[in-house]
Amino acid sequence: MSFKELQIEKAKRIEKILADYLPPVCGEQGVIMEAMEYSVMAGGKRLRPMLISETCRLFSGDDTVAHPFMAALEMIHTYSLVHDDLPAMDNDAYRRGRKTTHVVYGEDMGILAGDALLNFAFEIMAKSVADELENGSVELAKAKAGAMKLIARKAGIYGMIGGQVIDVRNVGTVMSIEQVDTINKLKTAALIEAAMMSGALLGGADDATVTKLEKAAACIGKAFQIQDDILDITSSQDELGKPIGSDDKNDKNTYVRLVGLEESKKLVSDLSNEGISLLKECRDGENDGFLEELLLSLIHRKK
Amino acid sequence: MSFKELQIEKAKRIEKILADYLPPVCGEQGVIMEAMEYSVMAGGKRLRPMLISETCRLFSGDDTVAHPFMAALEMIHTYSLVHDDLPAMDNDAYRRGRKTTHVVYGEDMGILAGDALLNFAFEIMAKSVADELENGSVELAKAKAGAMKLIARKAGIYGMIGGQVIDVRNVGTVMSIEQVDTINKLKTAALIEAAMMSGALLGGADDATVTKLEKAAACIGKAFQIQDDILDITSSQDELGKPIGSDDKNDKNTYVRLVGLEESKKLVSDLSNEGISLLKECRDGENDGFLEELLLSLIHRKK
Repeated sequence: MSFKELQIEKAKRIEKILADYLPPVCGEQGVIMEAMEYSVMAGGKRLRPMLISETCRLFSGDDTVAHPFMAALEMIHTYSLVHDDLPAMDNDAYRRGRKTTHVVYGEDMGILAGDALLNFAFEIMAKSVADELENGSVELAKAKAGAMKLIARKAGIYGMIGGQVIDVRNVGTVMSIEQVDTINKLKTAALIEAAMMSGALLGGADDATVTKLEKAAACIGKAFQIQDDILDITSSQDELGKPIGSDDKNDKNTYVRLVGLEESKKLVSDLSNEGISLLKECRDGENDGFLEELLLSLIHRKK
Repeated sequence: MSFKELQIEKAKRIEKILADYLPPVCGEQGVIMEAMEYSVMAGGKRLRPMLISETCRLFSGDDTVAHPFMAALEMIHTYSLVHDDLPAMDNDAYRRGRKTTHVVYGEDMGILAGDALLNFAFEIMAKSVADELENGSVELAKAKAGAMKLIARKAGIYGMIGGQVIDVRNVGTVMSIEQVDTINKLKTAALIEAAMMSGALLGGADDATVTKLEKAAACIGKAFQIQDDILDITSSQDELGKPIGSDDKNDKNTYVRLVGLEESKKLVSDLSNEGISLLKECRDGENDGFLEELLLSLIHRKK
């Protein structure tokens, strides 16, 4: 099986796990469960849960323990997209070729569906920690509580939300490369870091390894975001599933606008090399190399 | 010291605890910490953290263990108000006599400040559980993980958010008493239940007691909401700190509109009696009676 086929198969498996963790539509509030499902089951690379799974497998060979965290992190990523798309934020009507959540369900439900996904993500993780303490192993409960704590931190004001705040507040101003770098680190890399670190923790990696993976993930995350900005200019709407040129339209500060296309491409290459060399230092014995190929594919992607 | 003086003193102590848990303003994203603080430090009764504290004290005599959960629950309550006030929701410009968060910081920051408070609440709780597992007692970590799990559930689609969804979707329609009852149970009572149940858990109460307190809190929570609806009609803007008649303005379904003022007042009285009699069954030996007085004061409040 080729890497591409394997990746598709793994993404399908993750979608099954996601579907299992999504709440069934029930009660008078059923529309919120519908809106959550609509938002989460909109396709996409499933990158973050895949990174948790693959990093966990790197250390323990199996990712079952990570399933709740894979579902939770994808819900957190999804809520951030749903809120980003709102009229008061980026005001996007389409994502991945489909109408955005607030366009389908109304702006009030867009806000509430985002809130619901964020809350439910924590509900899933809290339940996993509590259940492990009730009926499982204290050692595993420690890893789970640690994973939940770091996902919360990387998703919050010191991570993704912090990056979003800086981004939103600086639309229309000319930013320095350092500021764009901070936005990329917080808004995009933080959740990639959360994915690889929590996967490692849940797989039983030691603290030093988790710290090294944080650095690797930071490189990959930044490269991923710069590649996103490159594609926003060089790709087409058909390929990308959303309008291109939206950064220009929204007057967003990006690396590409500040240093140009060629310099940006070089940076993507440098960062990905650094990230992968750090990852290689963390490897715990034999593995199938999928994670490394996955990270490389992110950098060379066309959509 | 009178009950009223004691209540004010306890609220002040809770504000100190809240201030300790709020993140310091720092980094390029400092404005989000400012908006969080502005939203949380807007006064209010501090009812939910006070209920955690007092219920915890009922069983253990001390509430130190509950501090992170008191801060977290108040942040969750606050985020729900910040998002409720948004233009796409209730579109309220004032709350507690001050401009609402989105009016001061902009609509985008209103959305993000709400997200940040919800996320940070879980960051605080997850850290408390993880730290307890690293350096504390497994027994206490179990109680903390249980409290976090139930707060997540009661705040989410099966609790507060669920109630908000039903409420928002039924503005302008005529609802049955059962439907309004469901909204009150989910939108308001759920967080009161979370407060009293988590306080009891953290204080070391057994499962049967926690379940009984859930029923007591459900009664008190419903009575509290109906009293709110009564005050929206019978109070004044000066007394309430927000415009009166807003339920009518927003065409909200309330008990008062469905069954009238007198019947609503009787219901408040019946529910509070039931709640307090359930609470009395849960009491673990001696206590100073503050919680009971607090619950009674909620029902007889004028603002």
